[in-house]
Amino acid sequence: MRLTEYFLPTLKETPSEAQIVSHRLMLRAGMIHQAAAGVYSWLPLGFRVLKKVEQIVREEQDAAGAQELLMPTIQSADLWRESGRYEDYGKEMLRIRDRHDREMLYGPTNEELIADIFRTHIKSYRNLPKLLYHIQWKFRDEVRPRFGVMRGREFLMKDTYSFDVDYAGARRSYNKMFIAYLKTFARLGLKTIPMKAETGPIGGDLSHEFIILADTGESRVFCHKDLLAFDVLGTEVDYAADLQPMVDQWTSLYAATDDMHDAAEEKALGDRLVTARGIEVGHIFYFGTKYSKPMNATVTTVEGGSVPVEMGSYGIGVSRLVGAIIEAFHDDKGIIWPEPVAPFNVGLVNLRPDDRACAEAGDSLYRRLRRAGVEVLYDDRDERAGAKFADMELIGLPWQVVVGPRGVKAGTAELKRRATGGSEELSLDAVIDRLAG
Amino acid sequence: MRLTEYFLPTLKETPSEAQIVSHRLMLRAGMIHQAAAGVYSWLPLGFRVLKKVEQIVREEQDAAGAQELLMPTIQSADLWRESGRYEDYGKEMLRIRDRHDREMLYGPTNEELIADIFRTHIKSYRNLPKLLYHIQWKFRDEVRPRFGVMRGREFLMKDTYSFDVDYAGARRSYNKMFIAYLKTFARLGLKTIPMKAETGPIGGDLSHEFIILADTGESRVFCHKDLLAFDVLGTEVDYAADLQPMVDQWTSLYAATDDMHDAAEEKALGDRLVTARGIEVGHIFYFGTKYSKPMNATVTTVEGGSVPVEMGSYGIGVSRLVGAIIEAFHDDKGIIWPEPVAPFNVGLVNLRPDDRACAEAGDSLYRRLRRAGVEVLYDDRDERAGAKFADMELIGLPWQVVVGPRGVKAGTAELKRRATGGSEELSLDAVIDRLAG
Repeated sequence: MRLTEYFLPTLKETPSEAQIVSHRLMLRAGMIHQAAAGVYSWLPLGFRVLKKVEQIVREEQDAAGAQELLMPTIQSADLWRESGRYEDYGKEMLRIRDRHDREMLYGPTNEELIADIFRTHIKSYRNLPKLLYHIQWKFRDEVRPRFGVMRGREFLMKDTYSFDVDYAGARRSYNKMFIAYLKTFARLGLKTIPMKAETGPIGGDLSHEFIILADTGESRVFCHKDLLAFDVLGTEVDYAADLQPMVDQWTSLYAATDDMHDAAEEKALGDRLVTARGIEVGHIFYFGTKYSKPMNATVTTVEGGSVPVEMGSYGIGVSRLVGAIIEAFHDDKGIIWPEPVAPFNVGLVNLRPDDRACAEAGDSLYRRLRRAGVEVLYDDRDERAGAKFADMELIGLPWQVVVGPRGVKAGTAELKRRATGGSEELSLDAVIDRLAG
Repeated sequence: MRLTEYFLPTLKETPSEAQIVSHRLMLRAGMIHQAAAGVYSWLPLGFRVLKKVEQIVREEQDAAGAQELLMPTIQSADLWRESGRYEDYGKEMLRIRDRHDREMLYGPTNEELIADIFRTHIKSYRNLPKLLYHIQWKFRDEVRPRFGVMRGREFLMKDTYSFDVDYAGARRSYNKMFIAYLKTFARLGLKTIPMKAETGPIGGDLSHEFIILADTGESRVFCHKDLLAFDVLGTEVDYAADLQPMVDQWTSLYAATDDMHDAAEEKALGDRLVTARGIEVGHIFYFGTKYSKPMNATVTTVEGGSVPVEMGSYGIGVSRLVGAIIEAFHDDKGIIWPEPVAPFNVGLVNLRPDDRACAEAGDSLYRRLRRAGVEVLYDDRDERAGAKFADMELIGLPWQVVVGPRGVKAGTAELKRRATGGSEELSLDAVIDRLAG
């Protein structure tokens, strides 16, 4: 993409309304535009990141055997009356009346809707287990929306629902999601710790939060230091196998958020305790028959009886993750994208697009990189070098290639790594080889 | 995907509430589940089709130089007051009050929101032209929602907005979308005719509807028969070139919907007139400064002045298209998917999964087809052959491969084309070669 054509409205000034670094950087990098309180438009650069995060979340759900569908944003109040949550949910639920004065709502979560789909179509243990998920916008009417996409009102969530005939099956589904979540966050470049959690308004009695570590994180967390060394990406996972030993490896070591923290554990761990700051990016729940019983979602058993189906739900805040990744990866110049979610892999800076040799060298590099399948943003604007460098640092693409008059004469360009600041002068062919490799 | 694991709830009976064939077939094929009046969940099979249609729409927008972003579903009423449409829009707009009693709405379209993004960030003719689009759920509170996804209340729309400094530029943008739309629908396997249209509530003075031809279409259309012979897929399009001659080729011949039809033209055309039934799947508008003027979205000109930006908007009903494609391609047994949007390309039917030789042959074909990159749905259920064939015909995958005891003994399987019913007995290797080709 050529920057002379691309819609990338970067800002020099820090917007005053943004209190946290990810919000500031997303506004300054032209990733989002506020549409209403807690409601954002994703501009082209931000949209690319959102889509990449979404795709990694999707791939790991598919790998774990979950099947994707798509439920609507608007739901009927009737289903929520069946579960008893319509009255309970409180003011965070956006309640709506349609033209016929029917009570509707903008879904904050989807247990009722998926239970309705389930009970209509699945009647037998033979059709179980089932893991169904969707990635859809949700709305929660927060009193004071703030922190940009980290606590927006309209937000993109991946929610999975599991259906099993008994507890043993439900536990297997829970374990699949537990491992899939670790894989997902690791692929995004994040260090994640699962922590035992309160079950809250979803209910149930088995629940973990997935917390990523970031110095600017919203809450304090405590954990055994060995948890930081576990490598889930290097582990081949067979989702058909028994995952309990792998889950146990993670859950046997101490890890807790501030509100669940146990001073006795802290003492016992001594210098094996790590204290850090964290951000919640996922939450998984087993809640058994909490919804299936009142909503009459039953299945026949192998013995010929009929039982309410055992359910769990598993959420990842997809739009929130974009903010969380920035909280984990930035410096005072801007964002430092992990490669898997970078909006472009390479920023090609042409210092003198008005100079014929520079223009030819830059255009040729741009063409060759694109032909090699590299996602490249080409700064071909007629701007000061300083402004170009500042924008490139701000939007944080993993690699920068700088083409200038001196290098062009020598047949070279500068290749620079955003994360380290390290750079080297390479021949144009070597630049292509390194980036297309 | 193995059918023993897949969530594909096909129905034998025709649901009584469905009045048109696409609605009936989508319910029977387990593609959708009604969540509320005019609001649907897309079950896994339907979701796959929706995503494929969306992706083709996206690719053709990108090819035409449009840039993707994503605006939210919930909008503030304030912007709509600026344009004057908040009062005008009527009961189709789903109006909402949040917990602070602020007036919000579920976007039925996005002219105001995109004009707000534009005026905030773009000030100069130097940053023009711009084509920005998103693919997002919309809500229109129809009095009597019906016809399934063909006239739902919550529906997926691709809407593009063009911004130019003058009419000549706006016309170029309009032409890009005109051609991109023809390409899009052709890639979906549809025969499309652009027809001059009323501009309606969006306003403006240049507008075309894109009508696909289907025997069960909602309205009568009339056109010059030569329009049916134009081949847009075979034409290489350079979007940087002047597209006016190409657009003129289409618009110079008579084409009109029922309400715009001119009896005099009918007489003049004689036997060159084709009468058919059609379905609207896209609509493009040039409306100039209708929104930019009241909303004060201005740009500086090359002469140093300042003018309201010239706008157009361009919509494709993505979810509606899924229904429209079924209206165009079905028979009395079920859907007949065009290959580019088929949920799977191949349905592999194992007639005797309980027979060891059949199970081995079926499983091996399944593995080999998948390894060759073929999307295959494998019916490995323990069901009567008749039920399996009926389901395969109903869901309408382009190819069927049937493995049975007789064929397995001879080392062959039956390869069948859904569209023609034609079949042949081939060696297993030949089946792979044909489908992976």
